[in-house]
Amino acid sequence: MTHSELDKILNLLYDNKVTPAEAMKKLKRFPAEDVEFANVDHHRAIRQGFPEVVYCEGKDEKQSVTIIKKIVDMKHPVLATRSSEQVYAKVKRFAKNAKFHERSRAITIEAKKIKRTGSVLVLSAGTSDIPVAEEAAVTADIMGSQVKTVYDVGVAGIHRLFKHSDKIEKARVIIVVAGMDGALASVVGGLAPCPVVAVPTSVGYGASFGGLSALLAMLNSCSAGVAVQNIDNGFGAGALAHKINSLPGSDK
Amino acid sequence: MTHSELDKILNLLYDNKVTPAEAMKKLKRFPAEDVEFANVDHHRAIRQGFPEVVYCEGKDEKQSVTIIKKIVDMKHPVLATRSSEQVYAKVKRFAKNAKFHERSRAITIEAKKIKRTGSVLVLSAGTSDIPVAEEAAVTADIMGSQVKTVYDVGVAGIHRLFKHSDKIEKARVIIVVAGMDGALASVVGGLAPCPVVAVPTSVGYGASFGGLSALLAMLNSCSAGVAVQNIDNGFGAGALAHKINSLPGSDK
Amino acid sequence: MTHSELDKILNLLYDNKVTPAEAMKKLKRFPAEDVEFANVDHHRAIRQGFPEVVYCEGKDEKQSVTIIKKIVDMKHPVLATRSSEQVYAKVKRFAKNAKFHERSRAITIEAKKIKRTGSVLVLSAGTSDIPVAEEAAVTADIMGSQVKTVYDVGVAGIHRLFKHSDKIEKARVIIVVAGMDGALASVVGGLAPCPVVAVPTSVGYGASFGGLSALLAMLNSCSAGVAVQNIDNGFGAGALAHKINSLPGSDK
Amino acid sequence: MTHSELDKILNLLYDNKVTPAEAMKKLKRFPAEDVEFANVDHHRAIRQGFPEVVYCEGKDEKQSVTIIKKIVDMKHPVLATRSSEQVYAKVKRFAKNAKFHERSRAITIEAKKIKRTGSVLVLSAGTSDIPVAEEAAVTADIMGSQVKTVYDVGVAGIHRLFKHSDKIEKARVIIVVAGMDGALASVVGGLAPCPVVAVPTSVGYGASFGGLSALLAMLNSCSAGVAVQNIDNGFGAGALAHKINSLPGSDK
Amino acid sequence: MTHSELDKILNLLYDNKVTPAEAMKKLKRFPAEDVEFANVDHHRAIRQGFPEVVYCEGKDEKQSVTIIKKIVDMKHPVLATRSSEQVYAKVKRFAKNAKFHERSRAITIEAKKIKRTGSVLVLSAGTSDIPVAEEAAVTADIMGSQVKTVYDVGVAGIHRLFKHSDKIEKARVIIVVAGMDGALASVVGGLAPCPVVAVPTSVGYGASFGGLSALLAMLNSCSAGVAVQNIDNGFGAGALAHKINSLPGSDK
Amino acid sequence: MTHSELDKILNLLYDNKVTPAEAMKKLKRFPAEDVEFANVDHHRAIRQGFPEVVYCEGKDEKQSVTIIKKIVDMKHPVLATRSSEQVYAKVKRFAKNAKFHERSRAITIEAKKIKRTGSVLVLSAGTSDIPVAEEAAVTADIMGSQVKTVYDVGVAGIHRLFKHSDKIEKARVIIVVAGMDGALASVVGGLAPCPVVAVPTSVGYGASFGGLSALLAMLNSCSAGVAVQNIDNGFGAGALAHKINSLPGSDK
Amino acid sequence: MTHSELDKILNLLYDNKVTPAEAMKKLKRFPAEDVEFANVDHHRAIRQGFPEVVYCEGKDEKQSVTIIKKIVDMKHPVLATRSSEQVYAKVKRFAKNAKFHERSRAITIEAKKIKRTGSVLVLSAGTSDIPVAEEAAVTADIMGSQVKTVYDVGVAGIHRLFKHSDKIEKARVIIVVAGMDGALASVVGGLAPCPVVAVPTSVGYGASFGGLSALLAMLNSCSAGVAVQNIDNGFGAGALAHKINSLPGSDK
Amino acid sequence: MTHSELDKILNLLYDNKVTPAEAMKKLKRFPAEDVEFANVDHHRAIRQGFPEVVYCEGKDEKQSVTIIKKIVDMKHPVLATRSSEQVYAKVKRFAKNAKFHERSRAITIEAKKIKRTGSVLVLSAGTSDIPVAEEAAVTADIMGSQVKTVYDVGVAGIHRLFKHSDKIEKARVIIVVAGMDGALASVVGGLAPCPVVAVPTSVGYGASFGGLSALLAMLNSCSAGVAVQNIDNGFGAGALAHKINSLPGSDK
Repeated sequence: MTHSELDKILNLLYDNKVTPAEAMKKLKRFPAEDVEFANVDHHRAIRQGFPEVVYCEGKDEKQSVTIIKKIVDMKHPVLATRSSEQVYAKVKRFAKNAKFHERSRAITIEAKKIKRTGSVLVLSAGTSDIPVAEEAAVTADIMGSQVKTVYDVGVAGIHRLFKHSDKIEKARVIIVVAGMDGALASVVGGLAPCPVVAVPTSVGYGASFGGLSALLAMLNSCSAGVAVQNIDNGFGAGALAHKINSLPGSDK
Repeated sequence: MTHSELDKILNLLYDNKVTPAEAMKKLKRFPAEDVEFANVDHHRAIRQGFPEVVYCEGKDEKQSVTIIKKIVDMKHPVLATRSSEQVYAKVKRFAKNAKFHERSRAITIEAKKIKRTGSVLVLSAGTSDIPVAEEAAVTADIMGSQVKTVYDVGVAGIHRLFKHSDKIEKARVIIVVAGMDGALASVVGGLAPCPVVAVPTSVGYGASFGGLSALLAMLNSCSAGVAVQNIDNGFGAGALAHKINSLPGSDK
Repeated sequence: MTHSELDKILNLLYDNKVTPAEAMKKLKRFPAEDVEFANVDHHRAIRQGFPEVVYCEGKDEKQSVTIIKKIVDMKHPVLATRSSEQVYAKVKRFAKNAKFHERSRAITIEAKKIKRTGSVLVLSAGTSDIPVAEEAAVTADIMGSQVKTVYDVGVAGIHRLFKHSDKIEKARVIIVVAGMDGALASVVGGLAPCPVVAVPTSVGYGASFGGLSALLAMLNSCSAGVAVQNIDNGFGAGALAHKINSLPGSDK
Repeated sequence: MTHSELDKILNLLYDNKVTPAEAMKKLKRFPAEDVEFANVDHHRAIRQGFPEVVYCEGKDEKQSVTIIKKIVDMKHPVLATRSSEQVYAKVKRFAKNAKFHERSRAITIEAKKIKRTGSVLVLSAGTSDIPVAEEAAVTADIMGSQVKTVYDVGVAGIHRLFKHSDKIEKARVIIVVAGMDGALASVVGGLAPCPVVAVPTSVGYGASFGGLSALLAMLNSCSAGVAVQNIDNGFGAGALAHKINSLPGSDK
Repeated sequence: MTHSELDKILNLLYDNKVTPAEAMKKLKRFPAEDVEFANVDHHRAIRQGFPEVVYCEGKDEKQSVTIIKKIVDMKHPVLATRSSEQVYAKVKRFAKNAKFHERSRAITIEAKKIKRTGSVLVLSAGTSDIPVAEEAAVTADIMGSQVKTVYDVGVAGIHRLFKHSDKIEKARVIIVVAGMDGALASVVGGLAPCPVVAVPTSVGYGASFGGLSALLAMLNSCSAGVAVQNIDNGFGAGALAHKINSLPGSDK
Repeated sequence: MTHSELDKILNLLYDNKVTPAEAMKKLKRFPAEDVEFANVDHHRAIRQGFPEVVYCEGKDEKQSVTIIKKIVDMKHPVLATRSSEQVYAKVKRFAKNAKFHERSRAITIEAKKIKRTGSVLVLSAGTSDIPVAEEAAVTADIMGSQVKTVYDVGVAGIHRLFKHSDKIEKARVIIVVAGMDGALASVVGGLAPCPVVAVPTSVGYGASFGGLSALLAMLNSCSAGVAVQNIDNGFGAGALAHKINSLPGSDK
Repeated sequence: MTHSELDKILNLLYDNKVTPAEAMKKLKRFPAEDVEFANVDHHRAIRQGFPEVVYCEGKDEKQSVTIIKKIVDMKHPVLATRSSEQVYAKVKRFAKNAKFHERSRAITIEAKKIKRTGSVLVLSAGTSDIPVAEEAAVTADIMGSQVKTVYDVGVAGIHRLFKHSDKIEKARVIIVVAGMDGALASVVGGLAPCPVVAVPTSVGYGASFGGLSALLAMLNSCSAGVAVQNIDNGFGAGALAHKINSLPGSDK
Repeated sequence: MTHSELDKILNLLYDNKVTPAEAMKKLKRFPAEDVEFANVDHHRAIRQGFPEVVYCEGKDEKQSVTIIKKIVDMKHPVLATRSSEQVYAKVKRFAKNAKFHERSRAITIEAKKIKRTGSVLVLSAGTSDIPVAEEAAVTADIMGSQVKTVYDVGVAGIHRLFKHSDKIEKARVIIVVAGMDGALASVVGGLAPCPVVAVPTSVGYGASFGGLSALLAMLNSCSAGVAVQNIDNGFGAGALAHKINSLPGSDK
């Protein structure tokens, strides 16, 4: 039930064209639709400059392209994660400004120029963590955050991290992407004054158990204020970081 | 090495009372201390109105009281988590304005009036989750966030949650505390426009495996933008929520 | 918002005492409350002869007694699980017809005579599984199912089970309670024509891992149509069995 | 030993052509066979309109086709799960009315017109859960239940679910298919008055651990009366739902 | 149905006092009971000199004593595992020849002199494994096996084991009891010509995870012919070893 | 050091051609070699009619063939497990009597006619368990045990098992091979008077976790005297069963 | 067989008082004992200044005291781990120089003055890790290593660690003791030129799963050359560190 | 900031060309860079004769070759692990002295003749463990350790190990590589006087759970002084062993 449908019922009642009992009957199913209606409003507000997200894993080439086409037709910005060059080639035909981010296999299409604001810093521990880190960076960027990335600053050579302390201090949100021991999240969590979003990756072998070691380490971080995401969930980290980064100032 | 010690060396050098080589030697161990010094500065900035945190679990009564006394003497605000009435009784003697939060077993002492700002909403799924929820609420509050709490709004009777949609829409950060199936985090994550911090609790039995079921559910939330904490880590959720809530407005 | 409150608004509108815009504003928060209201109706229908359930674990003596008192005052039937003799003693003072089921530590109070219908059969593999089995039996009984119990018919001596094949064939629902290897669920699942609700118990030691072995075995039952519950969740099994047992005949 | 063999022995004894001792000896192995004989009767009763089920996973093309052929020759209905188009093509040659259900990879053949009764509602949380959901739907349907399906109503946008509250209220049994956080099962379990069969799926990545996260969430559902199945076990859910749906009315 | 009841029916039929049809009807429930009857015969054969086993864990003092009394009254030998000195004191009153095995907390009562045959060798890796080892030894002994024990011969000092190579070569069955790394099972499995029964114990801490480390090591033993038992299941090992040890010679 | 080398040293000493000190020095390294020498003797005794076992998994075609060739040249019997038709084709060229067991992918070559003795019964729960069951059967057979097999007698239709109670009663050892719920092991363990060797298989999906469910169920069998093997370890089960089956009669 | 027994046989042979055949027979069981004898020699070498270790957990007061008394009587140094003040009080009576290390609950007794050499550095991440750290320190110390300890230098405030870079650079072996995220091991592993022994502790709660999180993080350390110990195994770490520290110089 | 940059600032200050305040500002970011600078020094010292390590897994052919080329150009020694023959073929073109170690898939290039010192002994339990063992051996060798290898000495035939007791006694460090039950680590740990580095491998199937069984067994080794590595981490073991082996003599 849309807003206007509800409006219509209320007016019919006001005009005594329906009885309260009839109105009651029609309103019986109101809640569900109204929740939807409410959410639609929410979503509209949120979506200003916010892309529709297409998760391509498990969809075939044709399905992905069709969905992306539909969004482009609505003039909405697009973020398609875990996609492929094949999909990109086909999307390129109808969306000239589509970009393919090779390492993260993400496609982005800006409907109109997005103004990036704030500052999200993405750090990766190793070079193998870059695909996940880039998915996070691309996500926050297309949603409207200014994003900087610093890769390969894991704690095995901690001086590499310290070179970037300037960036750490200035960021509004930091995303830390690390596999294996996940130790970078704790070190950054101890250094940074801002919220830290930690993404464990499945990088590693043996007792990394597909990212479990990094996940547990991050959940048990000895630094307070570390927000943990699912293993390899670069998209989720980017979306959360953008949500935090784009918060208006508190009434402090 | 403190700031003033460094200053002294630089002045000695400027005054040619030491040679560059001698200064180099003295500076050789500078980095570590300077990092500390830098952090101290950070911390000072962060700690304005921010309490020192004492984790009492695993400390005996005397140890906890001694540490709290030391912080009170420095006129700092105090947050002592997982404490006891016994500790509180002793603290009360030297800190008249100490408060004991029974359900979360936390002690708080405001050094001077803290101005609460922004808005953090704490939701709990069941009544058994309240101790963890209150730890989160007390933490964010003493750190300087305005906190509202709504308890017992789990998804088994989802209409209970919907009554509070006003609060959900207005919050800057929402903390969701839930054990068992942890489903409340996903539902709120789908409804709320703001960042959601999810805390799994060890409430449950059998295949809840001490909170593992809720933890995994939250990490796999089908809603984007959910920040997960360790099981029962109310303090961590409160600290993260405050960090997010107290972010100044972005330069959007 | 209650039904009557909604009714009042609709009538005010019909009588033109409020404008459609004013009504819209009042209805803005309607959905949540209405869902509740709808659910209350549902619940009322369901609750005919259906007890309020109090889970006493983790509540202190006083809390449990207070809640039970409240339900008794409303003339509702009561089921209090994982309770104690102490609670029972106090409940007995104001509810003469309260019964304490020792093995399952459940208290039941029938508000008025309940007519038991259908047939639920509860089987336990060993004597140590009886507390969970009895919790299931007591639950289904107080909800209105006719319940029969047969204990200690585990597969280590499978002839013990076969003696009761009559009962197995006649039941509308069978609850199988078993720890360790959980094999009884599969055997009964293969013999019985009706739905089987399987409850793993934490009975066992070592590699039973607190009921995990029985739980996994039941989830992997080679017999189709086995409904699995959480470890030791006798209440859940009883409630599910009653829901199935009390289904009216299909329109076949 | 068949019924007639037993009959023969009893008659020989009655006619004094064997002695009681000789008969005893012959009956020594009676129990096993008799159990079989009894079960055959059961099965016959159950199987009216009930298909033989062929689980094709791990069987080669030829094996699957041969078994299906045999059942078709007996004029029995067929359900072949986890099959392939190749098998279907070959089956089509001798069974013109065979249907291939693409998404669930199931083949069904109705021996004679089946009258569907009652109502089973299948809900899926996401689009990736549809293959499992369809396996459940196809199973319940070919067994003789009326089945409705509603897909992609996960809790990340809970208003999508509420649009279908009519169907939820009218169903005799609801099957909920969900991966990742499995939260839909708890939400539906809290809304629906009827039994709910929950099927976790292996949809997800990282800490979903192949469906473990959804499985644990469902076992720990805060809603009572949720029957859990093995991960991805659409067939099992369909069979259980049909068993429940087809129960004749209780003697209430 | 007992043997004599069946006999009676057959004779009635032989005497033409019942018709075959009437006999058929009476025999309809025969299988179950007959299986029992068959088993009873089995059991009788097996139980010659074989004790009734009472698992006292989870039974209260009175229950244990009552059951033991009943067995003693039937002049059967008794094995009561995981018992206590309190139970023993009470048993001693009516069974003068009862023995309490302190380390394994087992009570044994020989009904009449048992002749021990064959040879079972029980090895323990450490001194902390002795309670489980002794439970195995006591079990095999009271069942009728000749038992030798050698304790504290773990692989950290493998020469300790080699001193007993004589015993290893002569045993018909060897029980190896070990916690932590469970390595003794593999070493003995490689040395011994006879079957080896391996019992992991919960001895250890940290990553022994309550015996899981030893259990997995034993299941993965690089030596063929190692039979694994549940963690701490000394009784099971003793019973299995006795079953193997008491096998009559093959028809080789 | 071989036996003759030791002999030589002792004789040199006896002939005073070396001093005790010199002999001591030479003997310093004796233990290790002597253990070997002792073991060789053991092995020789054990190996009479006992095949050399080649585990082909992880070996390339050439390696497997070479090793088998070497054993054939020594006139020893051969058992090559987890092999392939390719290897078999090549082995066939130099070993005319080689046999390929298709379902278990095992190659066997009898060096000379083996006399099979005793009786080992192999039961499988489902048809998918047959490869593992056959590996067990082939192993015990080539080692010298008389082996019978009965497949597809899982507990979902327990009457299928009872038809074979004759065989169960007569066997000296029974191997039970089952995946999923592993319940067959417990049922057979309760029926059979002889030792039972249980082999869990990785048959199943979802919460069978690659055989973990069956493994745990078997370790927690409520029947005493069940010897558990690693998942899918048909070879180990066959070897253990043969060891038990070929024990000479005890001195009872 | 002791060295002198072997010597005696060789001399008898040399003196022709036994024949080579008789000597062979006596030597038949030589290997085992000789291995022991060899080990005894080893041990003697190793034990110079090396204490006998008594693990008191699971031993009662009397047992611990008796064993310690025996070692003291042999004039050997003593290390008793996981002991108690009660045991210490009794030991003190006969060993005046016994020391009780309160935090690690270890008792040490130096038989004669031990000369400490080399340098072992023990670092702990938190104050709760100190008991394990001290067990490591006490162990290495009593075995003869010079030990320095630096506690509470976890990565949440990494500057605390850097203050001690001097000590890190000079150590021959570093022991890192850390719970929760175990990140300190990776950071130190990246900084230190020497071998690092990492000990995870069970400090933490929730998803630390009793030390599993720290254990996995350490096993997956991104720094090479980290040697991992069991959870809470301070003794093992101290013993390994001492073994490494006391290696004589290589022939570089 | 490099050493010379710092030097320049200090000299400018000494020459009064900058004020202390200006110098302070420039030094503000000094720590991080200085730590790097310090580490570079460390690394230089360590890297004498020490190869740069390239982990090829997850890198494409071109990336691996490019990195190796760069190192060769700097005249540094190279170790490339988990590489391929394809990469080797291309590397061979510009590095004539490159070697490919087939079993471990490692490429090594000695920049100039390395003098091997000390002694590292690598033992493998089975032939399937050789690839990991060889990775360890190649690593320690190219880093400058003298390495001996003994393969296939698992405990199933423990005499095979004893033949090599000479080597065990003479080694400065022993690396034990074993899958399945991992028992070899405990046996060697009990025999060897030197530190033992244990590497679990993923060799095995079923309940070896990808190396978990061996890992847990090694962590729970009943022998003290066993240093555990991640599953299949041959490189890590070689690096650690070399670090230990190359320690200069302690000041004992």
